Amino acid sequence: MRSGTAFTQGLRQAVGDGPAWTVEAVRQVRYHVVSSDGLFEPGNTALLDGCPDVPMKRGERRLVVIDENVDVLYGAQVRDWFAAHGIEAAVVPLRADETVKQWDAVSRVVDAMNDFGIDRRREPVLAIGGGVLTDIVGFAASLYRRGTPYIRIPTTLIGLVDAGVGVKTGVNYERGKNRLGTYAPATATFLDRTFLRSLPYRHVSNGLAEILKMALIRSEDLFRLLEEHGPAVRADRFQGTTPELAAASDAIVAEAIHLMLEELQPNLWESELERCVDYGHTFSPTLEMHALPELLHGEAVVIDMALTTAMATLRGDVTAAQADRIHSAIRGLGLPAWNDVLHDTALLEDALRDTVRHRDGRQRLPLPMGIGRHRFVNDVTPGELRDAAALLWEHHRPAEPAAAAPARVPEQVGA
Amino acid sequence: MRSGTAFTQGLRQAVGDGPAWTVEAVRQVRYHVVSSDGLFEPGNTALLDGCPDVPMKRGERRLVVIDENVDVLYGAQVRDWFAAHGIEAAVVPLRADETVKQWDAVSRVVDAMNDFGIDRRREPVLAIGGGVLTDIVGFAASLYRRGTPYIRIPTTLIGLVDAGVGVKTGVNYERGKNRLGTYAPATATFLDRTFLRSLPYRHVSNGLAEILKMALIRSEDLFRLLEEHGPAVRADRFQGTTPELAAASDAIVAEAIHLMLEELQPNLWESELERCVDYGHTFSPTLEMHALPELLHGEAVVIDMALTTAMATLRGDVTAAQADRIHSAIRGLGLPAWNDVLHDTALLEDALRDTVRHRDGRQRLPLPMGIGRHRFVNDVTPGELRDAAALLWEHHRPAEPAAAAPARVPEQVGA
Ligand SMILES: NC(=O)c1ccc[n+]([C@@H]2O[C@H](COP(=O)([O-])OP(=O)(O)OC[C@H]3O[C@@H](n4cnc5c(N)ncnc54)[C@H](O)[C@@H]3O)[C@@H](O)[C@H]2O)c1
Ligand SMILES: NC(=O)c1ccc[n+]([C@@H]2O[C@H](COP(=O)([O-])OP(=O)(O)OC[C@H]3O[C@@H](n4cnc5c(N)ncnc54)[C@H](O)[C@@H]3O)[C@@H](O)[C@H]2O)c1
Repeated sequence: MRSGTAFTQGLRQAVGDGPAWTVEAVRQVRYHVVSSDGLFEPGNTALLDGCPDVPMKRGERRLVVIDENVDVLYGAQVRDWFAAHGIEAAVVPLRADETVKQWDAVSRVVDAMNDFGIDRRREPVLAIGGGVLTDIVGFAASLYRRGTPYIRIPTTLIGLVDAGVGVKTGVNYERGKNRLGTYAPATATFLDRTFLRSLPYRHVSNGLAEILKMALIRSEDLFRLLEEHGPAVRADRFQGTTPELAAASDAIVAEAIHLMLEELQPNLWESELERCVDYGHTFSPTLEMHALPELLHGEAVVIDMALTTAMATLRGDVTAAQADRIHSAIRGLGLPAWNDVLHDTALLEDALRDTVRHRDGRQRLPLPMGIGRHRFVNDVTPGELRDAAALLWEHHRPAEPAAAAPARVPEQVGA
Repeated sequence: MRSGTAFTQGLRQAVGDGPAWTVEAVRQVRYHVVSSDGLFEPGNTALLDGCPDVPMKRGERRLVVIDENVDVLYGAQVRDWFAAHGIEAAVVPLRADETVKQWDAVSRVVDAMNDFGIDRRREPVLAIGGGVLTDIVGFAASLYRRGTPYIRIPTTLIGLVDAGVGVKTGVNYERGKNRLGTYAPATATFLDRTFLRSLPYRHVSNGLAEILKMALIRSEDLFRLLEEHGPAVRADRFQGTTPELAAASDAIVAEAIHLMLEELQPNLWESELERCVDYGHTFSPTLEMHALPELLHGEAVVIDMALTTAMATLRGDVTAAQADRIHSAIRGLGLPAWNDVLHDTALLEDALRDTVRHRDGRQRLPLPMGIGRHRFVNDVTPGELRDAAALLWEHHRPAEPAAAAPARVPEQVGA
């Protein structure tokens, strides 16, 4: 931790034609990410005393908003845990998938907070679910009375390595992906990988896409872990059934989170717009919303990465051999590297334009350099997009091997 | 300005049963309040170069959201000014009164931002109107892509001395006053008192209520200014038609803003819940929403202050003579000090309960001590509320002189 950096604070008054004031202030933010498997097993007390900033004691009350699918699977265990520890929990199931990630869902959480009569700051809201659920509840909490603390318990892989550990909340607005939101970290996030045992493989792959992103842009070591152990860890749903699988799962999750937090911490409010963690997030917001509900978030991200890898290949920053390694890693993780929306070059241009608006008028596009490193470019042309899409299509026309199949067949929750 | 206070920043990793991380970061916030009368007079360039943090140049575009009543009065002048300075302005009128201060209005501003295709961070949204309009637009901007800068141009007295100079945004949710919102100051607020020339007297009084609040709690000097010059400055709508009126108007506005900013700056995010600027805001949120649209914001605040002055009188902290001075000041400013909702003690208890929730489980009720000073109490009982309301009623039963009349007769905009 660094400390003592100089910040200015205070009120300055100037007198010209009329009085003028400048107000400066500094806000300190702190949040915690704590691992504890089996959070709702009777003997586990991590939620009570695992994070000193959000202690929970017998006799207190909590509002718990839970993804309705997670409720079906784990709701009874969750309720039992609270009862056993003497916490009066109001458990509110909420439908939370990408198609309902809109203001209406936020409004429902606000209703629940009103009904509960939540005590500002003393009764943090608990959010149990995937990235959609935690984004919605985090958003609602951050707005309620201009800020009510909340706690995240991610139940998907995306939640564990990405949505659950950052500071962003939000919902879509019409077709605008996460168009509305806040920077408001949960005071604490508790990571419990045992939830993944029921996660459909397609959603395991979906989370692996965000891990692959960190690897491609920041760490060849992590990439090698994914090459070697990704498929097995995926098949095991990160449950660590053998010592070797446990070691690989631990290493992959911890490394992905650590890299992510290293990137986020110095730039929590995104004042620096060149963010390597935006890799895979240039075209994907538009692709995801356009193809909704066909493409999951991570699938859209991986398609974006395949496209930008092709761009980097054409620019000579990624060799053909490296591109092949990347493509086989993608397949090994059960992810698609192509979607027919990529034929729609006008859509890609739209997507780039929207991202430019998001990034303050410049492309600031992270492109891979080899594996594990990146640079930012601002000179992508429509022609280059077309060429990259064409190159990718070469790899993926129907003759493509069937290894990508698991990702294309949607599975049912709990299947 | 102070600087160099120590803050911790960084990423700390601990390893127990599983890895745990603590993220700490610091956000520096700065905003400006600049006075310039006649902003939209052809020769005035304050909006172009009056604040270095938000320069505006010929050839640029701006989205301007304007209160529809203000648009009727000043829209042509506003459009002419932008045209004359070569700024392509999309001027969007919005209905903005307390009854429509709800999410729908925010959504309309988001639509306007989408339609405009706003460039994040480079094209601040301008908000021209009263506190309702600037609260709505500020809220929408703070959420749009998790934060798009905006500029406030308040056109009411409440806007000039209160809503326009702080950091709070928000809307009501059902009956919950400002239940949803953010802390997100406008990068710059431009204060132009000439807008007040068309403000109905009732709304001038409404703003005087917030000034009176600062006086009662912080400054007997400001209170004396209001006693001596309040009625005349009100009649003149702060236009400074004579040198004496100009001096009084300047002094009252500058002092009110300065005191307000002094209170806000060290506590911008309200981490300290004992806020003297909450004086008059303990019962008023519930009263205002309950009586909507009968009571204006400042009217509800002044009724709350009358009630709490009665409490302080009963406690011996305010003498009968001081209470009389306060009551005649209230009358002199054209404000009501009684409303029949005060007979409803159950409602007052509800209001107190809701405020306790807002203030982290304690009352933290600012009560006046004499004139210009205050203390916080936590021991108000339902009996005390009843007694205070009864005492106030003694002063205000129908025999009451007619001086309060101007405040009771709603005027039309522009009347
Ligand atoms: N806030 C951030 O920083 C951030 C980062 C990355 C992604 N996101 C957001 O996260 C969302 C994607 O999150 P997601 O992939 O978790 O999707 P999700 O929340 O939709 O969850 C995926 C599906 O799995 C179900 N589910 C959840 N947990 C389960 C479990 N343990 N067992 C069985 N089924 C379970 C859910 O009901 C849902 O149907 C996107 O909206 C994306 O924008 C946010
Ligand atoms: N954000 C904050 O810190 C803060 C502080 C105090 C009050 N507020 C909020 O401000 C709101 C009250 O603001 P307000 O009193 O400005 O009310 P308002 O915005 O409703 O304006 C009052 C009326 O005057 C009209 N109007 C505005 N400017 C005019 C002009 N120049 N000439 C003629 N008519 C004009 C409006 O159309 C409206 O009908 C409340 O919702 C309150 O919660 C916010």
